[in-house]
Amino acid sequence: MEGPAAPTPSALAALRPLPLDAVRLDPGGLLGGWQERNASATLPHCLDQLAAYGNLANLRRVTGDSDAKFAGMWFADTDVYKTLEAMAWETGRSGGSTEWMTDIAALLEKAQDADGYLNSYYQLDHRDEQWSDLGFSHEMYTAGHLIQAAVAAARTAGAPQLVTVARRFADLLVRRFGAGGEDLIDGHPEVETALVELYRLTGHAPYLSLAERFLTLRGHGLLGEGRFGPRYWQDHTPLIDADEATGHAVRQMYLLAGAVDVAVETGKTALLAAAERLWESALAGKTYLTGGMGSRHKDEGFGDNYELSPDRAYAETCAAIGSFQLAWRLLLATGKARYADEMERVLYNGIAGSTARDGRSFFYSNPLQLRTGHDGSHEDTPSQRLTWYSCACCPPNLARLMASLQAYAATGQEKGIQLHLYSAATVTAGAYRLGVRTSYPWDERIDITVEAAGDGPWTLALRVPAWCQDARLTVNGSLVRAGVQEGYLRITRSWKAGDVVTLLLAMPARLVAAHPRVDAVRASAALTRGPVVYCLEHADLPAGVEFEDWELDASAPLSVGEHELAPAIHASFRPRPESSDALYQPLAAHPAGETAGETAVTAPAIPYFLWANRAPGPMRVWIPLAARET
Amino acid sequence: MEGPAAPTPSALAALRPLPLDAVRLDPGGLLGGWQERNASATLPHCLDQLAAYGNLANLRRVTGDSDAKFAGMWFADTDVYKTLEAMAWETGRSGGSTEWMTDIAALLEKAQDADGYLNSYYQLDHRDEQWSDLGFSHEMYTAGHLIQAAVAAARTAGAPQLVTVARRFADLLVRRFGAGGEDLIDGHPEVETALVELYRLTGHAPYLSLAERFLTLRGHGLLGEGRFGPRYWQDHTPLIDADEATGHAVRQMYLLAGAVDVAVETGKTALLAAAERLWESALAGKTYLTGGMGSRHKDEGFGDNYELSPDRAYAETCAAIGSFQLAWRLLLATGKARYADEMERVLYNGIAGSTARDGRSFFYSNPLQLRTGHDGSHEDTPSQRLTWYSCACCPPNLARLMASLQAYAATGQEKGIQLHLYSAATVTAGAYRLGVRTSYPWDERIDITVEAAGDGPWTLALRVPAWCQDARLTVNGSLVRAGVQEGYLRITRSWKAGDVVTLLLAMPARLVAAHPRVDAVRASAALTRGPVVYCLEHADLPAGVEFEDWELDASAPLSVGEHELAPAIHASFRPRPESSDALYQPLAAHPAGETAGETAVTAPAIPYFLWANRAPGPMRVWIPLAARET
Repeated sequence: MEGPAAPTPSALAALRPLPLDAVRLDPGGLLGGWQERNASATLPHCLDQLAAYGNLANLRRVTGDSDAKFAGMWFADTDVYKTLEAMAWETGRSGGSTEWMTDIAALLEKAQDADGYLNSYYQLDHRDEQWSDLGFSHEMYTAGHLIQAAVAAARTAGAPQLVTVARRFADLLVRRFGAGGEDLIDGHPEVETALVELYRLTGHAPYLSLAERFLTLRGHGLLGEGRFGPRYWQDHTPLIDADEATGHAVRQMYLLAGAVDVAVETGKTALLAAAERLWESALAGKTYLTGGMGSRHKDEGFGDNYELSPDRAYAETCAAIGSFQLAWRLLLATGKARYADEMERVLYNGIAGSTARDGRSFFYSNPLQLRTGHDGSHEDTPSQRLTWYSCACCPPNLARLMASLQAYAATGQEKGIQLHLYSAATVTAGAYRLGVRTSYPWDERIDITVEAAGDGPWTLALRVPAWCQDARLTVNGSLVRAGVQEGYLRITRSWKAGDVVTLLLAMPARLVAAHPRVDAVRASAALTRGPVVYCLEHADLPAGVEFEDWELDASAPLSVGEHELAPAIHASFRPRPESSDALYQPLAAHPAGETAGETAVTAPAIPYFLWANRAPGPMRVWIPLAARET
Repeated sequence: MEGPAAPTPSALAALRPLPLDAVRLDPGGLLGGWQERNASATLPHCLDQLAAYGNLANLRRVTGDSDAKFAGMWFADTDVYKTLEAMAWETGRSGGSTEWMTDIAALLEKAQDADGYLNSYYQLDHRDEQWSDLGFSHEMYTAGHLIQAAVAAARTAGAPQLVTVARRFADLLVRRFGAGGEDLIDGHPEVETALVELYRLTGHAPYLSLAERFLTLRGHGLLGEGRFGPRYWQDHTPLIDADEATGHAVRQMYLLAGAVDVAVETGKTALLAAAERLWESALAGKTYLTGGMGSRHKDEGFGDNYELSPDRAYAETCAAIGSFQLAWRLLLATGKARYADEMERVLYNGIAGSTARDGRSFFYSNPLQLRTGHDGSHEDTPSQRLTWYSCACCPPNLARLMASLQAYAATGQEKGIQLHLYSAATVTAGAYRLGVRTSYPWDERIDITVEAAGDGPWTLALRVPAWCQDARLTVNGSLVRAGVQEGYLRITRSWKAGDVVTLLLAMPARLVAAHPRVDAVRASAALTRGPVVYCLEHADLPAGVEFEDWELDASAPLSVGEHELAPAIHASFRPRPESSDALYQPLAAHPAGETAGETAVTAPAIPYFLWANRAPGPMRVWIPLAARET
């Protein structure tokens, strides 16, 4: 049973995914808890919303079983497909009913045109517009999500008949847009990675060729100017020549994911190099501390280097998911720990922050600051998570990621297991089995018990995150003086059942500064601990001083303490010295008068991903630094 | 000959405008130079662009004289009307040909429907959509600009037949939407102020009543949610209850301008109070240092209080013009100098910065920062001014303001003249005539010669801007110890021809800080002198250190010196101490190592309004402060 984006045996791969069922995340751990919440709350919520918002009725219109008006976005089918994919992974993870999936598969089969076309928006009222506006029609993007759902279903035996539907559509794409066909590409990448996955499932080479063809055609202006210019959809320069992540962040991430998939299956290493290069550029100047990407609301785009305002951070949930998926592919292809580091960062912050504790409401954009008096009246800038969106791409995208989360925790080959994401789990790889016990990321200790050891020596590789300055390893209580090599501690031995490996990843609370070119957070710091970014939320500060007037005393020690939501970082805050109400005023010759010492308070900062789970109010990740006493 | 927004004799008015021809700005002064450039470059450019971009052909389609496709935005007629208005004011200012205006008036008369309707978009292909989407159709907004053009033409005798056309349309609006008619309002305010102007011209009370009715109907959700929610078009709460400037900045400014017009003509002081209150809220937390308004690209909207990122400043040129027009109305109604102060600030910065030195290219949005490597490939975020825009609202709006600029410089009554904007000029009011000689805002000295004194005592009132800490006045060389009263120095005497008044408004170069809640410019300062905001532009710094790595040494003295573009502020800059390239890193326990003293340079900052007149490159108004040496 394979998981997402598992390369074929002949693909370039530094690491190999384990089967989908190799890792079982313990529901008592943070990641396993998220999976349980996804299964018990988010997925049922998605099914309800698809029914309530007309996504299913849209498809039933095509089969003549509904006379409702078309509802929602023109690519509303993708919400159904992403939910289908999530249900498929969930079936693979926990078993459970496949009834809904089977029903939907039958509906899709009935709705599909004889030639394979399937799109509830373009099959009825807009039939004459089919394939006429690929910049914005999302027809191939929609096909891509259908294909991904089908691949997941086939891998988990969730609703295998979906593959028939998906292949019919994919075959239509090959006939129409394959070699010798029309030179067209979709404005929203997605079909590329989907086609490679379908190739991996079926072995049918034309799917892979079509994916490669789409990548090659991109960057030559085929899509025209559109509303935001060719950089918006990465059509301004061929990918193999590009050197900067640009435009719509989700499009960029999905495009690069497809590029890695094609690269590893075809051996076209220039595509892999391009993906690494653009990933690097995004991380170097266009990524929020949370791993979120996309600084602009207008075009959901990256913006310039260092343009990273926390208040207007768009940081779309889907971009964070795309970043995670890209990093996973790059990790498999290269084995470099930095990609797993990024998976961890974006998972615990940019992705996790999108979902409410109850799993039933979500952020689409994920700001790093909300001011007192924020106008949250519109869904573009809500003050709290919403149960659904007019463009509901994110919730089912979260569902499909969470339902398959265990697939990303470890990799393995014949002679080794590599652990990338730490959470309480059981990992089975061939003859080996590991029991992982930990409260990570709240606790630095990870205990790994070898439950089945197999024969002969093999290597256990444990990722040491780049944020960790002090990693200690013991085996059966004895300190092992292994050096961290390229992000991993590796221990090779003939393991015995009952061996216990303990990894201590020191995770002191820490103050983080941004590069001085990030103007928006100058003279401010953020609090982090381990992979988790923290934030200051209104409810944790004493009344009497307005939220925006607190400053962080960087000279006071930080400590970790209890909080109703999660382990918190306790830091010292001081009210800013009083100043004029004027919006602009002469620069004071000297810093304003010092605040009386007795007004300083110690207050908890909470994990960013848990903000907005109490009464609505202001929040900030980047906290102004109190002037240093001199 | 009346100028823009001149109240009727019975209106509430603390100050009275002078006739349009009372002030003649000297072309050698800055304001007069702008007027000349407008006449010689911007207006001909607008005429060319209206022809080239199809705006005129759109109207000729309606008359059957063109078979071109409709071109541009659905409200493209407004570009014609604003240009017409500009041409009318220019006729009033300098005489000159009215041929183009007469031709267009004839075209409009021919294009107008029998019932008075006129809109080239909705008269042909979209006739069945008339009045069906007032949220976004801009039909009344378009009518409003037609009316304003007609009023200007009537006042200057530019093309008086336009009034016939405008009244036919206005009468249609009265029949359809007046008392007892449909309860509808336009999503984009503009018709309100236009209707009051038409009432002022014609004395026809139903126009005033309709304007008041539109204001009363607004705020009750008639426009629905639209794309951005009801706050976008200020339909979320009745104006008389509103307490915060919200939504689309141009809409907010135009709405408040209309509210003041209605208030002063009807005596409904609650509307005036609302306009003052909302203006206050905008100035207190939602206005850039340049006077620009609107922090968000997505909805061209204000955003939250203190959300004032310089890089993503939208600060639309039309919003700055709207702010100027609103402040003018508030000045007349209340006589408060703060409104004239704001006219001055936004004129010299937010408005002036939009236009290139040659008067033929323009900014639509006016950022306060452009980074090295900025992507200026799209018209939403260009690196330099563009000759035209797909939505070309701003250039002709500039033209109509500049063509009437002299109208805003002074006011007068029987016993006095009030000077608000200083530039070389001749001011004639009844029996009095003043000759103003000054190089303001480059020089602090303003010499005013009484050229005709009339009989008996009268009062000369001279505005002392709030930025000025030291104003000195002499009359015929003798120091006058008059106190500044509510923003004005007032001298009452029996003037004699030849009397010379000299006002010295000390204007040292100054460092300005923003309120600490403006997170985006923390630990930075801006340079100003008098009313002019300065900026640092790439071309004025030595090579070898990248633009973003310069910091301002606030401890070094500032001086004013020559520069090819304008008097510059010379300040001291130091390269930032070298730091890691990492986007995020642990906060240093102590500030980074000091920069060697010898690397500091003195470099000129130029007036913000002159940026982007050399090779494209980075610019910033807010400059990071070098760490203070301790």
